[in-house]
Amino acid sequence: MSTALNRLGALEAARKLQRRELTAEQLVRACFARIEQRENTVHAWTALQKQAALDRAQELDRGALRGPLHGLPIGVKDLFDTDDLPTRYGSPIYERHRPGLDAASVALCRGAGAVVVGKTVTTEFATYQAGPTRNPRNEAYTPGGSSSGSAAAVADEMVPFALGSQTAGSIIRPASYCGIVGFKPTFGGIPRAGVKSLAESLDTVGGFARSVPDVALFASVLMRDPRMLDLAYDGKPRIGMYRSLQWRHAQAETKEAFAQAAAILSRAGAVVEEVPLPPEHCVLVQLHSDIMAFEASQSLAYERLEHAAQLSSKIQAILDAGARISAEEHLKNLARAAESRARVDTWFDKYDVLLAPSAAGEAPFADLGTGDPQFSRAWTLFGLPCLNLPFATGPQGLPVGLQLVGKRYSDHSTLAIAAWVHQRLLAANAPDIGASDMWPRG
Amino acid sequence: MSTALNRLGALEAARKLQRRELTAEQLVRACFARIEQRENTVHAWTALQKQAALDRAQELDRGALRGPLHGLPIGVKDLFDTDDLPTRYGSPIYERHRPGLDAASVALCRGAGAVVVGKTVTTEFATYQAGPTRNPRNEAYTPGGSSSGSAAAVADEMVPFALGSQTAGSIIRPASYCGIVGFKPTFGGIPRAGVKSLAESLDTVGGFARSVPDVALFASVLMRDPRMLDLAYDGKPRIGMYRSLQWRHAQAETKEAFAQAAAILSRAGAVVEEVPLPPEHCVLVQLHSDIMAFEASQSLAYERLEHAAQLSSKIQAILDAGARISAEEHLKNLARAAESRARVDTWFDKYDVLLAPSAAGEAPFADLGTGDPQFSRAWTLFGLPCLNLPFATGPQGLPVGLQLVGKRYSDHSTLAIAAWVHQRLLAANAPDIGASDMWPRG
Repeated sequence: MSTALNRLGALEAARKLQRRELTAEQLVRACFARIEQRENTVHAWTALQKQAALDRAQELDRGALRGPLHGLPIGVKDLFDTDDLPTRYGSPIYERHRPGLDAASVALCRGAGAVVVGKTVTTEFATYQAGPTRNPRNEAYTPGGSSSGSAAAVADEMVPFALGSQTAGSIIRPASYCGIVGFKPTFGGIPRAGVKSLAESLDTVGGFARSVPDVALFASVLMRDPRMLDLAYDGKPRIGMYRSLQWRHAQAETKEAFAQAAAILSRAGAVVEEVPLPPEHCVLVQLHSDIMAFEASQSLAYERLEHAAQLSSKIQAILDAGARISAEEHLKNLARAAESRARVDTWFDKYDVLLAPSAAGEAPFADLGTGDPQFSRAWTLFGLPCLNLPFATGPQGLPVGLQLVGKRYSDHSTLAIAAWVHQRLLAANAPDIGASDMWPRG
Repeated sequence: MSTALNRLGALEAARKLQRRELTAEQLVRACFARIEQRENTVHAWTALQKQAALDRAQELDRGALRGPLHGLPIGVKDLFDTDDLPTRYGSPIYERHRPGLDAASVALCRGAGAVVVGKTVTTEFATYQAGPTRNPRNEAYTPGGSSSGSAAAVADEMVPFALGSQTAGSIIRPASYCGIVGFKPTFGGIPRAGVKSLAESLDTVGGFARSVPDVALFASVLMRDPRMLDLAYDGKPRIGMYRSLQWRHAQAETKEAFAQAAAILSRAGAVVEEVPLPPEHCVLVQLHSDIMAFEASQSLAYERLEHAAQLSSKIQAILDAGARISAEEHLKNLARAAESRARVDTWFDKYDVLLAPSAAGEAPFADLGTGDPQFSRAWTLFGLPCLNLPFATGPQGLPVGLQLVGKRYSDHSTLAIAAWVHQRLLAANAPDIGASDMWPRG
């Protein structure tokens, strides 16, 4: 029986744990059984602590309920500081690093009863130098990055939830490639204290689960917002379909998923409209990229100045690009971004959410890198809440997701509408594609 | 001769160092001589590294010029991570903490040739539980907080520059109480990586020096903006005099300094106008305070959940206040702040800078705490660049400063106008008050 427990979604497991129908120890053991079976293929973890996790689970089983995450095993991206596990930020510079404290988000999860089973692979400082993680659907492919291990571990049913972060597309893209739900809240929604900084005006903490309600359970704790435990929605959402100016880079499977979703949601009663693409959005990918490069070259000053020899050529290229941007230009870029952001905010007078591609298509081969964040850069720059909703399957049999974008500071209603949308997409799509085995059940 | 070298301002010392008319070793020795003479009275430091600083100075003297800060000794607020010195964040929780890396701002200073002589006292996690530091002008009084040690060390001529940070009024207030220049750039202007997070939408890194050009020298490095090395300004600035809705809390010395400054600057050719106070600004102090409390309770989740017994009652009260604010209310507060910020941004169509009180008046007695940040909360909430300009003297013979507020992303022109303003204030005021001995010379 315990072999299937690892497949439980976070919310279902939490309910059983709260009713004491399931012990934390059983769940943690099931997760470790899955990890032991699959880790040699998936390589999602940089560090695991089986005994400490079991001790903590037993302590929770013996004691009173600790909170909404009581007994839930989680993975933590190795960009987040942890008191009890090595924290390497994906870099050899930090091979023996022990930060001596927990990131605030890790502490919030633990405080609500979660059990940290280990740290998950991140690319180097959350940029592009890939770690060893493979896509659990097919190990020839990348899981995406930078939250590679967190996405892969959740997709492979090793844990029901994992913490991640996004500066360009590091939550939405791996969630899409791995076929799970990824959630990036409104900029600033989850505390970043104790997460290695890459680009301050962009870095956003979020996470991965296998359904919208599962990710919302964690968001309720991380954002301290109990409204997220109730995702009831009985409206008819107004959905703006935003192809994006990167549409020409979208592969056939993404274009088809986008069109199918519009048809399904329209039939389900949503008001679905194509958003006219503002020509000035053509600068957003470069604008995001320049802001990220400048800020990375500032935030990673210690590594750049004191440990340059241990930086990969990939991150060195970003830092060099950042160093070529003047402060004068950077301040203009920030002002441009603020103007563009204010204009997009007004779109939400007309639409409740936007639907956009999550990535160009299926995951690329692992040896081609972790994929391109181009479909996420604008939304991260705007700081809007985003989810990846796994939906279709591409020609290689790999997942294809769609990105749902919500209104600033409206994370609760964004999650509620995302649950409504995802339920309808899955209900309509499952019979056609038959690849929903990894997607949320029930 | 070497006894007076510690009195050199950063820019003058830098010029002598660049011309090799002064060695870094001489300067570091002079600073340590001053520290050894005065530290038992001032208590500015949590850790000092004399031998390491001398070794580094000798290395700089032997080698090529490293950058614009070549050979300059600096202090670092103990809220900033350092690789080579203990980092305690003003809390017993971190009594033996060694973060294993330098904050990005520290790395930028070192990379440009600065010599870190030690860490300076911060209040507990940059809030209100005072450390041992006393006002160097009169040790019965507080130096202000939270950057207590950095302000005191610079004011007492122990170092020409020190790093600080502001979440409410932690740079402007101690600079005013100690009679030096404090600079808080536009929000995000200096990287925060490696600085303990208190409230993410407010925390801003800045610093202290004894003149505007001295602080601008460091800003040029920290913001990577060489324009700040040239503060020439030949315009006639349009200055909005903003009393603030806390005017009723301003003491006589502040009201007089404010009126005097208006008269002096008007005579000097500036266009000086009183800004009508928007009634809706009456909420800003509370709005800032609520946003700070909510975010602090999130950012300090690890300390709050795992080490509560070692938190002071003062910070516990802030965290409790934060815990009573719902996420729904917090998101509304952020939206309110954004609206108010956007309106104030438009004031800079009419004014080049604003002039406002820095604090209610002179420093309070040390046993009354570190003073009230009420005159800085709104500007921190708006994320605008601010300087304290030391100007007058109060009834106890202690300094009184004025706060100059600039336009977002216009840190360079703000500093240039601040230099123009400060020069005129000091020229007009010095004969009257005769307390300029601590203020910039030449």
